[in-house]
Amino acid sequence: MGKNIGYATPDKTTPLAPFTFDRRDVGPEDVRIDIAYCGVCHSDVHQARDEFGGALATLWPCLPGHEIAGTVAEVGADVTTYAVGDRVGVGCLVYWGDESQRGVPEEQYQNPPAIFTYNGQDPETGAVTLGGYSDEIVVNQHFVLRIPDAIPLEEAAPLLCAGVTTWSPLVHWNVGPGSTVAIAGLGGLGHLGLQLAKARGADRVIALTTTPDKADDLRELGADEVVDMNDDEAVERLAASVDFVLSTIPTPFDMKPYLSLIRHDGALVTVGMLEPIHEGGIDFGAVSLSRITIAGSLIGSIAETQEVLDFAAEHGIRPEVQVIPVQDVNKAFDEMVANNIRFRYVIDSKTLEADRESADELPTS
Amino acid sequence: MGKNIGYATPDKTTPLAPFTFDRRDVGPEDVRIDIAYCGVCHSDVHQARDEFGGALATLWPCLPGHEIAGTVAEVGADVTTYAVGDRVGVGCLVYWGDESQRGVPEEQYQNPPAIFTYNGQDPETGAVTLGGYSDEIVVNQHFVLRIPDAIPLEEAAPLLCAGVTTWSPLVHWNVGPGSTVAIAGLGGLGHLGLQLAKARGADRVIALTTTPDKADDLRELGADEVVDMNDDEAVERLAASVDFVLSTIPTPFDMKPYLSLIRHDGALVTVGMLEPIHEGGIDFGAVSLSRITIAGSLIGSIAETQEVLDFAAEHGIRPEVQVIPVQDVNKAFDEMVANNIRFRYVIDSKTLEADRESADELPTS
Repeated sequence: MGKNIGYATPDKTTPLAPFTFDRRDVGPEDVRIDIAYCGVCHSDVHQARDEFGGALATLWPCLPGHEIAGTVAEVGADVTTYAVGDRVGVGCLVYWGDESQRGVPEEQYQNPPAIFTYNGQDPETGAVTLGGYSDEIVVNQHFVLRIPDAIPLEEAAPLLCAGVTTWSPLVHWNVGPGSTVAIAGLGGLGHLGLQLAKARGADRVIALTTTPDKADDLRELGADEVVDMNDDEAVERLAASVDFVLSTIPTPFDMKPYLSLIRHDGALVTVGMLEPIHEGGIDFGAVSLSRITIAGSLIGSIAETQEVLDFAAEHGIRPEVQVIPVQDVNKAFDEMVANNIRFRYVIDSKTLEADRESADELPTS
Repeated sequence: MGKNIGYATPDKTTPLAPFTFDRRDVGPEDVRIDIAYCGVCHSDVHQARDEFGGALATLWPCLPGHEIAGTVAEVGADVTTYAVGDRVGVGCLVYWGDESQRGVPEEQYQNPPAIFTYNGQDPETGAVTLGGYSDEIVVNQHFVLRIPDAIPLEEAAPLLCAGVTTWSPLVHWNVGPGSTVAIAGLGGLGHLGLQLAKARGADRVIALTTTPDKADDLRELGADEVVDMNDDEAVERLAASVDFVLSTIPTPFDMKPYLSLIRHDGALVTVGMLEPIHEGGIDFGAVSLSRITIAGSLIGSIAETQEVLDFAAEHGIRPEVQVIPVQDVNKAFDEMVANNIRFRYVIDSKTLEADRESADELPTS
């Protein structure tokens, strides 16, 4: 019987269920965190159901969660930046790809890749890393973020993946004053991307949605305009008027109508879709005719994650969260796939305790 | 019986044949050019066979050719920059999209679009513009290029489309010292892109080909390395080592192996393909994992066209041309489609005279 508890699955068809396991002992540079909340990211669904494939094929068992907020419970001998009781978070990364990467910026783009919070391979034990749908986590201090006092822990959680994933491309592509920005896909990521783009001073922020009954919510979050992408005339009116489309759509889609919105030297950057594009979805004639850029962007660095937390605190950006008991996580997955969510489920980690008696030991891979 | 002669086709299935027609009278800003040579571009094949579709659907009759080199025969009253006898060229564009665009840079990206040398709509007459597979052309002086004395006219021709089309993205994406560049597709465009990238000071220029028997030629043109894209091991050795892939491949292709070569923050820019990408050809997981950019680029501006002519003269860049009589143009089209060419066919315009007696009048659209 392990002393930790979390929700995990041994294979791609079994729903998540409670299991016990043991976190590693706290090493000299490690911080042990009592998890208070963990956001539920669409990637968690993809990973638990082994839908990514390729370099992101799922390692088993899968214990998801990379939007972790809590307080420091214990620190290692060499930890200088955090003390017991500090409000902290952990995002998508928990270690460097190798030791030579210490001090290198943009941890997420190095080779070998940085270790993911779950579905990574622990560099010490070789075991699969286990995420934040659990009571505790032990993480090297470099990968621990400080949560500003102004942000409630449950609202901090979504900033750690959804927030930084939309923040990083907005910064990299210089979205701000002078920009007309459109956000495609208005879920956990998109509703933050919208607020962040607005707070960065973009001239005009347009929400592109296929669920137009979200329109009032989106305007309240700061959208200057909400466009139903199924309304051909509305799409046509917006033709060649947008500098930057940030797509958070988590599944393959037809890019054509989105590309039609972009003006000369504009860009569409996707942070959501990690699958092949929709068949025939890019007409390179249209792309060439306006020298349009299509790019991908992967989460964000540790420095950027701290940056977005601080920026959100300063600008009053608040993720819209629905706090749920961990026992509802499988239902939450289904609701997310059905696009029935506004805008982020966050697990209340206290609710794990109810399952401790009945939980089995987590099988090893 | 028109006083001009050229090779044209009334529909997408008929081979090109000689027809007579009349160029417009020389207006105050116009230059009349005696055409000496005209390059045969892959776009000419696509357009004559109506393979582009969409905004580039073919207008009939189609008289192709936008790599035009010759000498000035007559100038209008307000022409100040050219005189009779000057060595000049005309590339892909012959007029602004509208008068408000006078003085605006990047003519090719304006809205409405600049008028193409052929398959455009003449702003005065409304008739379809007729290209360089002909004896003469009349063009506004702004769209006339000066051919440096160091460049023979037959070698100047390919610089006017193939040259500037590869030059423009190399400049826009700052390819030069420090860059590792790969050129995909080593035909008329690629063999110039390779030489231009090398002359711009790129650290390493790699030719990516599927016809490896071109390797010696490509090394002679300046390739530091030639990689057969059908050789999986060679592709693997090059993984994540290239900053910039310039694709001149004129047909849909599987982008995956090309994207695998690109390192973090690198780009693939296509100037060749104007069709939808190969089904499933982009895995956005791979693109996101390295924040790779995919973009399109369209020919080049008039200023860039003059720039590449001057740069080629200064750096001794010489297009590899095979001069052919116009009567061989249909055969040349077939050879290009079959990829049997090193590297550019150029029509000797003198050979048009032999058909003058037998030519029919060009039908109007």
